[in-house]
Amino acid sequence: MHTATALAERFALGLRGDGSVEIHGVGTLAGAGPGQLAFLANPRYRPQLADTRASVVVMGEQDADKSSETGFAGVALVAKDPYAAFARMAALFEPQPVRAPGIHPSCDIDPSATVADDAHVGAFTSIGARSRIESGAVLGPGCIVGDACVVGAGSELIARVTLVTRVRLGHRVRIHPGAVLGADGFGLAMDAGRWLKVPQLGGVVIGDDCEIGANTTIDRGAIEDTVLEEDVRLDNQIQIGHNVRIGAHTAMAGCAAVAGSAKIGRYCLVGGAAGILGHLEICDRVVITAMSLVSSSIREPGEYSSGTGLMDNRSWRKNAARFKQLDELARKIKGKPKQ
Amino acid sequence: MHTATALAERFALGLRGDGSVEIHGVGTLAGAGPGQLAFLANPRYRPQLADTRASVVVMGEQDADKSSETGFAGVALVAKDPYAAFARMAALFEPQPVRAPGIHPSCDIDPSATVADDAHVGAFTSIGARSRIESGAVLGPGCIVGDACVVGAGSELIARVTLVTRVRLGHRVRIHPGAVLGADGFGLAMDAGRWLKVPQLGGVVIGDDCEIGANTTIDRGAIEDTVLEEDVRLDNQIQIGHNVRIGAHTAMAGCAAVAGSAKIGRYCLVGGAAGILGHLEICDRVVITAMSLVSSSIREPGEYSSGTGLMDNRSWRKNAARFKQLDELARKIKGKPKQ
Amino acid sequence: MHTATALAERFALGLRGDGSVEIHGVGTLAGAGPGQLAFLANPRYRPQLADTRASVVVMGEQDADKSSETGFAGVALVAKDPYAAFARMAALFEPQPVRAPGIHPSCDIDPSATVADDAHVGAFTSIGARSRIESGAVLGPGCIVGDACVVGAGSELIARVTLVTRVRLGHRVRIHPGAVLGADGFGLAMDAGRWLKVPQLGGVVIGDDCEIGANTTIDRGAIEDTVLEEDVRLDNQIQIGHNVRIGAHTAMAGCAAVAGSAKIGRYCLVGGAAGILGHLEICDRVVITAMSLVSSSIREPGEYSSGTGLMDNRSWRKNAARFKQLDELARKIKGKPKQ
Repeated sequence: MHTATALAERFALGLRGDGSVEIHGVGTLAGAGPGQLAFLANPRYRPQLADTRASVVVMGEQDADKSSETGFAGVALVAKDPYAAFARMAALFEPQPVRAPGIHPSCDIDPSATVADDAHVGAFTSIGARSRIESGAVLGPGCIVGDACVVGAGSELIARVTLVTRVRLGHRVRIHPGAVLGADGFGLAMDAGRWLKVPQLGGVVIGDDCEIGANTTIDRGAIEDTVLEEDVRLDNQIQIGHNVRIGAHTAMAGCAAVAGSAKIGRYCLVGGAAGILGHLEICDRVVITAMSLVSSSIREPGEYSSGTGLMDNRSWRKNAARFKQLDELARKIKGKPKQ
Repeated sequence: MHTATALAERFALGLRGDGSVEIHGVGTLAGAGPGQLAFLANPRYRPQLADTRASVVVMGEQDADKSSETGFAGVALVAKDPYAAFARMAALFEPQPVRAPGIHPSCDIDPSATVADDAHVGAFTSIGARSRIESGAVLGPGCIVGDACVVGAGSELIARVTLVTRVRLGHRVRIHPGAVLGADGFGLAMDAGRWLKVPQLGGVVIGDDCEIGANTTIDRGAIEDTVLEEDVRLDNQIQIGHNVRIGAHTAMAGCAAVAGSAKIGRYCLVGGAAGILGHLEICDRVVITAMSLVSSSIREPGEYSSGTGLMDNRSWRKNAARFKQLDELARKIKGKPKQ
Repeated sequence: MHTATALAERFALGLRGDGSVEIHGVGTLAGAGPGQLAFLANPRYRPQLADTRASVVVMGEQDADKSSETGFAGVALVAKDPYAAFARMAALFEPQPVRAPGIHPSCDIDPSATVADDAHVGAFTSIGARSRIESGAVLGPGCIVGDACVVGAGSELIARVTLVTRVRLGHRVRIHPGAVLGADGFGLAMDAGRWLKVPQLGGVVIGDDCEIGANTTIDRGAIEDTVLEEDVRLDNQIQIGHNVRIGAHTAMAGCAAVAGSAKIGRYCLVGGAAGILGHLEICDRVVITAMSLVSSSIREPGEYSSGTGLMDNRSWRKNAARFKQLDELARKIKGKPKQ
């Protein structure tokens, strides 16, 4: 339980209205009830202010100033970035499951592995040779940590995470279920009509404060390591090939895929199901929109896209048929004969 | 073992030929042998009728009437929808693995969880605090059910399914291996040059009779729940973001992805690897073709597409190069100067 | 430790320079140090020859001949295919984790299953009824082998692999963590407004020497089997629908998806996140570039593509808008009225 005044002081926010109102949880503008805190960040939801039953709403100064117009009758907390302020406050109401220090008796831990006394290791977890689980780390049930891995201090493998081999996590890394780090990269040479596997000998290095989504895969490097710098955020079902390097503070949405040896800069945003071909370089602060394919290096910050817009299928068929004639059509327009 | 007559009576089908023939299994038109039941639904397979060795074939009335033309010499079962009729009959021949009631001794079950007496819980399964496994539910080996989850009556987690937290399944829900429900949604706010995690506090609600494919992920809501209404069918490797709502009877093919807070109607069909951006609304009875990207809301039922057709790479390169000049070309045609 | 002379003899390579130099590991041209072996296969890395600290570099004859020009001062091993030669030599330096024969005491093995005496079965592994683990097979921790499966001689399930039911692996098959083989295919019939599940009764057959990546899914056939012929190589997060058949020596990059009953030829290369619709046939030696959609059968070997190139978002928006007018524009050019 927190009063609006207490929240305003703790998070250095402005306060408009009765600061004694008590908050015991969070909700959306449309769904919150009395005693709940909501937020207004996206202007499209502004019309919901009039009818919200939330006791307190965190919003920008402009919205707070116009509360008479918007019809909002509750208490406002005023923030420069209402979404970030909400994120901080919501964390107060997040139930924290108890993860008592200790190793579940069912676990299978190699004698050469070390586990910090205050780490938590859940049921049915395996830890391989020469691996190290550092202070305060949490391994949920069903995790597999292979040989020569490090789970850094304060990191959490929620459940059923696999670190195959030579995977080193920094501090406060969070990995969601089904993720697989350190599987072999896809290295093949054709040799006398058959595939020859190229040994994958490198590891995976994950920087501090990274978060990795459910069922995401990050392959070990072929010779050197695959690297995520600090504070990289990967959503679910992302595929990162061997020897990729992702710069600090870059975020990638679900189902994106990065082929081997690509280098992605810092503060990039990669949209859902976007693809990045191998051996490319992408500079800092590049935005790739959803389902776009990056097929050559990008050297200028900015937003990039490929693909075509959605249409009704009948119209689309006509236009897509014309796409196949596009070069011919262009030659007609430009008056040049076909080569 | 079932006779053709018995099948005709049980499933209210027409019968042409010797109803005493005995059926002990199913096969394809091309691959079935004596004693097997096959079906003809897709007209492209009609030519296979002449040579099929299946003793009985379920087909539409038109095909049954033309059996002299098609050369089919076996017994016909006549159905309005031969594929649905086949599905019902094939279920008779499906081996049902024995899943004896009881909890495998290796399991790790929180004392506050409840498991129905007639439920089956396989080896190496964890069940967390305050979770409930209802009557007749089956949890195969290696499942993880976190805190505050419900596995409804008659539901089946085939094997190695993860319900992270606050996941509530209705009745007769079927989930395939590797699926992860209830992992954190991808909620981030940029704050002074670093990502700030937005707490994910909602749950996942799955309606009755839903089926969820292998390695599919469905994130928990940020504040409210992520919802699948009844009879939603998701194939493998699908990604459903936080706070998505999918209407009853909608089916999505493999590798489709739906970003956060999108609302999809009832009876929609989403093709393989199609993408749906966040916060959109799609009305009932919309069909999205494979690998299309839905980038704005859809308010009319119908079929929608994006992308271009496949071409040999040399022609494609020429046309794709012209796509980059398309606005310029169009201005030439329309006689308008470049802005 | 191997001398250059020993490597040259063992792998039938040419040798230029002091064959007595000792090699104890591998590295990249840029990163290797003394005592390490590197390779030059991709000409873009040729400039790195001058500065490499690698003691030995495997390269093509042309590069070896020009070593005075390139400034390379080390020992050269000369190969027709330097990448394949490197792959063979690197395998000498690959640490092989010890996988002692025997079954971990935590395992849950059905009495009707058989496990070869020299097979290794890691912790928390389940093996179902009538399944067979052949000689020299390795099952890492957390694997689930369902009913009626075969893990052929010398095959390896790295860790946490699921074979659901009726999955038969040939010899020397390698499967990475999180892969699910033999889950139900996506077979549905609409019946009176509800989905009716079509029983999935077939199996999965994987040929000798196949490799299957992390979190890849291969569904069981509806009636007959889903088949990978020998030496097929699948990267991570690939989806293979029911009754697909993939020809020998075909390789598919990460996130590719193949819908049900498609038949893919031998020696095909399928790019990352490419899609192949159901019931199509693709002949031998077809290359599909990344993120392309194959929507009709391919009968000629060659390289195929779809999609558009990447552009800055502002230009892309203009051109994508024109794509929606393409048929109209084409009619104007060709002087035909709109139908």
